[in-house]
Amino acid sequence: MQAYHLDSSGNMGGLVLRDTSTPEPGDYEVLVRVHARSLNFRDTMIMQGRYPLPAVSGVVPLSDGAGEVVAVGSNVKRFAIGDKVAGSYFPQWQSGRLTMEQAAEQYGCTRDGMLAEYVLANEQGLVRTPQHLSYAEAACLPCAALTAWSALNGPRRIIPGETVLTIGTGGVALFATQFARMAGARVIAITSSAVKAAVLKEHGAHEVVNYVEHPDWDKQVRALTAGRGMDHVIETGSIATLPKSINSAALDCQLTLIAALASSAKAGDALDPRIFAGLLNIRRVFVGSRNDFEEMNRALELHQLRPRIDKVFAWEEAGLAYQHFESRQHMGKVVIVG
Amino acid sequence: MQAYHLDSSGNMGGLVLRDTSTPEPGDYEVLVRVHARSLNFRDTMIMQGRYPLPAVSGVVPLSDGAGEVVAVGSNVKRFAIGDKVAGSYFPQWQSGRLTMEQAAEQYGCTRDGMLAEYVLANEQGLVRTPQHLSYAEAACLPCAALTAWSALNGPRRIIPGETVLTIGTGGVALFATQFARMAGARVIAITSSAVKAAVLKEHGAHEVVNYVEHPDWDKQVRALTAGRGMDHVIETGSIATLPKSINSAALDCQLTLIAALASSAKAGDALDPRIFAGLLNIRRVFVGSRNDFEEMNRALELHQLRPRIDKVFAWEEAGLAYQHFESRQHMGKVVIVG
Amino acid sequence: MQAYHLDSSGNMGGLVLRDTSTPEPGDYEVLVRVHARSLNFRDTMIMQGRYPLPAVSGVVPLSDGAGEVVAVGSNVKRFAIGDKVAGSYFPQWQSGRLTMEQAAEQYGCTRDGMLAEYVLANEQGLVRTPQHLSYAEAACLPCAALTAWSALNGPRRIIPGETVLTIGTGGVALFATQFARMAGARVIAITSSAVKAAVLKEHGAHEVVNYVEHPDWDKQVRALTAGRGMDHVIETGSIATLPKSINSAALDCQLTLIAALASSAKAGDALDPRIFAGLLNIRRVFVGSRNDFEEMNRALELHQLRPRIDKVFAWEEAGLAYQHFESRQHMGKVVIVG
Amino acid sequence: MQAYHLDSSGNMGGLVLRDTSTPEPGDYEVLVRVHARSLNFRDTMIMQGRYPLPAVSGVVPLSDGAGEVVAVGSNVKRFAIGDKVAGSYFPQWQSGRLTMEQAAEQYGCTRDGMLAEYVLANEQGLVRTPQHLSYAEAACLPCAALTAWSALNGPRRIIPGETVLTIGTGGVALFATQFARMAGARVIAITSSAVKAAVLKEHGAHEVVNYVEHPDWDKQVRALTAGRGMDHVIETGSIATLPKSINSAALDCQLTLIAALASSAKAGDALDPRIFAGLLNIRRVFVGSRNDFEEMNRALELHQLRPRIDKVFAWEEAGLAYQHFESRQHMGKVVIVG
Repeated sequence: MQAYHLDSSGNMGGLVLRDTSTPEPGDYEVLVRVHARSLNFRDTMIMQGRYPLPAVSGVVPLSDGAGEVVAVGSNVKRFAIGDKVAGSYFPQWQSGRLTMEQAAEQYGCTRDGMLAEYVLANEQGLVRTPQHLSYAEAACLPCAALTAWSALNGPRRIIPGETVLTIGTGGVALFATQFARMAGARVIAITSSAVKAAVLKEHGAHEVVNYVEHPDWDKQVRALTAGRGMDHVIETGSIATLPKSINSAALDCQLTLIAALASSAKAGDALDPRIFAGLLNIRRVFVGSRNDFEEMNRALELHQLRPRIDKVFAWEEAGLAYQHFESRQHMGKVVIVG
Repeated sequence: MQAYHLDSSGNMGGLVLRDTSTPEPGDYEVLVRVHARSLNFRDTMIMQGRYPLPAVSGVVPLSDGAGEVVAVGSNVKRFAIGDKVAGSYFPQWQSGRLTMEQAAEQYGCTRDGMLAEYVLANEQGLVRTPQHLSYAEAACLPCAALTAWSALNGPRRIIPGETVLTIGTGGVALFATQFARMAGARVIAITSSAVKAAVLKEHGAHEVVNYVEHPDWDKQVRALTAGRGMDHVIETGSIATLPKSINSAALDCQLTLIAALASSAKAGDALDPRIFAGLLNIRRVFVGSRNDFEEMNRALELHQLRPRIDKVFAWEEAGLAYQHFESRQHMGKVVIVG
Repeated sequence: MQAYHLDSSGNMGGLVLRDTSTPEPGDYEVLVRVHARSLNFRDTMIMQGRYPLPAVSGVVPLSDGAGEVVAVGSNVKRFAIGDKVAGSYFPQWQSGRLTMEQAAEQYGCTRDGMLAEYVLANEQGLVRTPQHLSYAEAACLPCAALTAWSALNGPRRIIPGETVLTIGTGGVALFATQFARMAGARVIAITSSAVKAAVLKEHGAHEVVNYVEHPDWDKQVRALTAGRGMDHVIETGSIATLPKSINSAALDCQLTLIAALASSAKAGDALDPRIFAGLLNIRRVFVGSRNDFEEMNRALELHQLRPRIDKVFAWEEAGLAYQHFESRQHMGKVVIVG
Repeated sequence: MQAYHLDSSGNMGGLVLRDTSTPEPGDYEVLVRVHARSLNFRDTMIMQGRYPLPAVSGVVPLSDGAGEVVAVGSNVKRFAIGDKVAGSYFPQWQSGRLTMEQAAEQYGCTRDGMLAEYVLANEQGLVRTPQHLSYAEAACLPCAALTAWSALNGPRRIIPGETVLTIGTGGVALFATQFARMAGARVIAITSSAVKAAVLKEHGAHEVVNYVEHPDWDKQVRALTAGRGMDHVIETGSIATLPKSINSAALDCQLTLIAALASSAKAGDALDPRIFAGLLNIRRVFVGSRNDFEEMNRALELHQLRPRIDKVFAWEEAGLAYQHFESRQHMGKVVIVG
């Protein structure tokens, strides 16, 4: 089979396409013909050697992929040949509190990922994909969609009628907008252009604040809630937007700080500790468990929601896909098929 | 002012209209001109002398009413003259776990209720009503709507994509259908006619099973969920429907048993203990706290939901309203205005 | 290796000791030399053919066992040779909400259990045992201790200072008494003799009510709480004690109904539906997830708690152990070593 | 009656003792003869004019006091003359999520507090004190004890066996140590001397790390947990200790950041945003609701816990009490009786 490998990190030069033998499933394993993958910020961090968890040398990159089961081991109970599946970001994390042991196994980092024709996985590390989605659409779910889902479906689930703030039009932010609307919340989004505002409204935002026109967008957001502030904030922006996100927060707000962006802070960056002056809860979230993934898929099916795909690249254009993603011009997900 | 009083219980003859002096608010009190009220099953139980909590002799009946603030005491902070308000069923229950002390104070039972021109209340025992609702609509909320809300927004809130079963077209059942849909659930309802099925679909039900056509409706419901069963059951039927409700339940289902109907069981009735054979959770619910009421109103406003009113009676037709309610022919709420 | 097999159900005659070849671990599997097992009510139900899940013909019985890892498959990460482990009742249930798929796999029923010299298990279906416990003690944990733990550590965890009622001196009841005390609760127990009362006090009960002396023990219990009633009830008695348990309950009580006993209700038994007259929550519980098991073991180690063993039988006395268990005279656990 | 008033803020000179008329209770009000009060960090902030909420000019200071009910209004139901009570920090907050309206009313700040012979309060803003405590001891509870209680009894209650880190020997830290131990946790404390370490062990700490001897105390703490880190951190230190607290945290740790200290951050202070690199939850906590207070008192009574009083000052020594408190030399609470 063909697969891309990360032979070295630092730049795109480390990404090498090679032929290897197609693996065979062990007793509890499943072989999947991967038909589509999507890119996430963590994949560019791994490519650049900046991810907190060191990648295995020569690893097949990408956490997110969807495909078809083509072979199953003798003890496999969860899947049969022909099932459409996606990888669960942490293949060992079924539910409950994440352990260090479970966090240490990740597709496209510490074990081979989805930028290959085939992937071999323990049956516990896969989920069925929603029936109404294509492979390209299903490949958008494992990291970005599940992160948005977990942000909203954690220990403090949305009460219908509560307010949710989303930031921008990246993958996680668009999913968060869709999921918050689905749960009965009032969604306020911030963005930088009328075009993006229109996309956000299409995905469920009740109101959109343009932060270029309103650099003091925190005041605008607070005014939209009659001074009360937001009940939930899905902070997908960066450490730079955090102080204003916090200014937008209601008393006892649940602010979710998405992992990848928080991790991207650099030595020398500084935060004003007065961000902690008010009463709020900051929860760091990164992806979710297999159980969360299955619950999300059930909701996607019921509501017939679809991920927004920004652009689809062919198998041989994997490098171009990375470049497009790194340009940060996309709205929605960047996909590689084939 | 004019007010109806329950001078004796047992039958409608005890309901007497009298003139009394209009009260004046104490330091922390509010005087409300009541413009509309609605009837609930508990009101007929009180009328008949079958309610678990004995009513005060001569009490003004009805828990549910909405009106306008016309006078406030010197220490009142929550309301001003002109505010539109409704009574909170348990006026002392602000939030958290209900205490016996809080449960013992109820409008229209242990203290004067809403079937009067004016009601006097501690400011803590009132809430603002949703802006888009008329007085008649707002008067439908305190008991039935809040019971449905509490059933769905308790310790195990709906996960979007979960399944919810509702039973019939009574007040609580219709609100539960609306609220479950609002929270992103898949709603299956059971009822007895095509007309009622159409009303249920209007209020958000995805699927409706006719239990006259399908006496084994539990099997139909289970089939609709591919054998898995329902995640939530809002049991507003009676002890008679409970065994089939339980048969419809998924593993670890949250089944909510509405208080009034459970309390109506009589000596000699019997339940098969094998209803406890499966793994499920049965939670008894009755109305909710002031905080729940305020959260519900926020959601009603956002979603512009309206209660379904079956019939509106004039002030002097209070007795007819009781009779209509007791005939059990209504779909939605029975209201008295004036 | 030697193993007992249930060649038929109905009576003890179906239990047959046989020699079979010792299995070898697959890629994700572990071979355990079992040194001790304990009996549970479900094992006698399986023996008698009354368990809700049909047992595989010839299955090695018993869910509960502890032993030493003697061989591991090539992909095993969680364990090494020499580790002391016990089986997790539902070997596929890691955490979260139990699924039907996970419920269907159980040691000693649908797959071979612990009444053998060796057991083969997927590494996901085992846990490390507490370091301070012997094999005999560790073998007491998987079903009875974890059921008690789950009863108290579910969605509504004990608030220190809350009251907990336990019933009798069976395995689950004694563990529940210990665990409730450990969590800071006030524990009231009911039992039938002064000897048993002393055992309950040793295990942490603050007060014990003798139900032989006080057939209206529900009134005694309520009086001990100044009329308020119990916050938690761990109902390990039977359908017969349930009405009085419910009479002992505080408003909004969490009553846990242990699975095995509820399931033992027979056709013709009847419950008064007025048990549902008050406001309370009934939660059915049966064992728990692997994650729960690991959390329980951490607590057992910190508090250096030990299971109470009633009697230890030798390998060749397995039949006697069953007979002793079925006589219902034991206080604590019945163990088979060797 | 005599009362101290804060006629101006900035320094101790603003604290003036005056005679005023003793108030009389309105319909829903209670008059309390205050016998003891305790000081909290918020009181020195108010004295210095640095508290986020501006104090009323001439206000009677101090949130914390305990005394005896000496008169009740005509509608009062919760208390009778002779009852021993303490003030609830937010007198309007009964339970649930704190609102801005509730947060705005505080004894000793926006309304008269406890440094008076008598205090007048709405019956909803008082709680019964534990029977085994003296007035001096009960006066230690409203702010510091309840803050510690809320930190541990929030949305993620302790699982017995979990680890809790406490910092220092201040009022909140000592209560947190006691309450964590009471809930079955393993408590690790950090402090600066052997004398203080002994006090912490008396109050329930399993292990104490001396941060003077071990400036890298985060590594010590992590080593004590075999590398896993702490499940709960009660951060009562300051912004300065926060980075090391976070280094001590387990994956998905619940870190509670006590309000007063976080609020004390000054312009120009800076935090490294990489504190957000790991997966954890930061929850800001400040005191608690009346319901929390009542639950805490029930637990204090059951466990017969007593606050540690550092020093008791007489009525006329109020200024000395403030000075002693501000010197930060105390271990436990500073009390004013009379």
